[in-house]
Amino acid sequence: MNNAIFYHAGCPVCIEAEQKVAEAIDKARFHVEIVHLGEEKNRLPEAERAGVKSVPALVLNGVPFHINHGANLSALK
Amino acid sequence: MNNAIFYHAGCPVCIEAEQKVAEAIDKARFHVEIVHLGEEKNRLPEAERAGVKSVPALVLNGVPFHINHGANLSALK
Repeated sequence: MNNAIFYHAGCPVCIEAEQKVAEAIDKARFHVEIVHLGEEKNRLPEAERAGVKSVPALVLNGVPFHINHGANLSALK
Repeated sequence: MNNAIFYHAGCPVCIEAEQKVAEAIDKARFHVEIVHLGEEKNRLPEAERAGVKSVPALVLNGVPFHINHGANLSALK
């Protein structure tokens, strides 16, 4: 199973990306997890290790993709 | 049927996004079209009208999402 993690922080840009991009992912091939980094700050180190610099971001099998720009990760610490 | 158009310009950032993000879209729910704006310059006005500022970009049902950053659209004209 492929792995998709969508990191966001509840911002409007994040929510639109979640509703459109994360929603479009093929659930038959990908396990999709949605992580709110503002509420789950313990996931910040993991996101940083994956190369996430800002949210919203989609990490597909470990590869980070930044989708538009809502907030830098540094603003969530 | 939902509509997804992935605009790119053949750059390495574009190709990675195409192979990972565009590939992850659920083909059962989305008609996915890949457009190389360097080779199909006649599609530039349409991309601009959809709000695409840079490539790679994914337009889902008319809403643009910029994925990482390869090149500005202005560089492709």
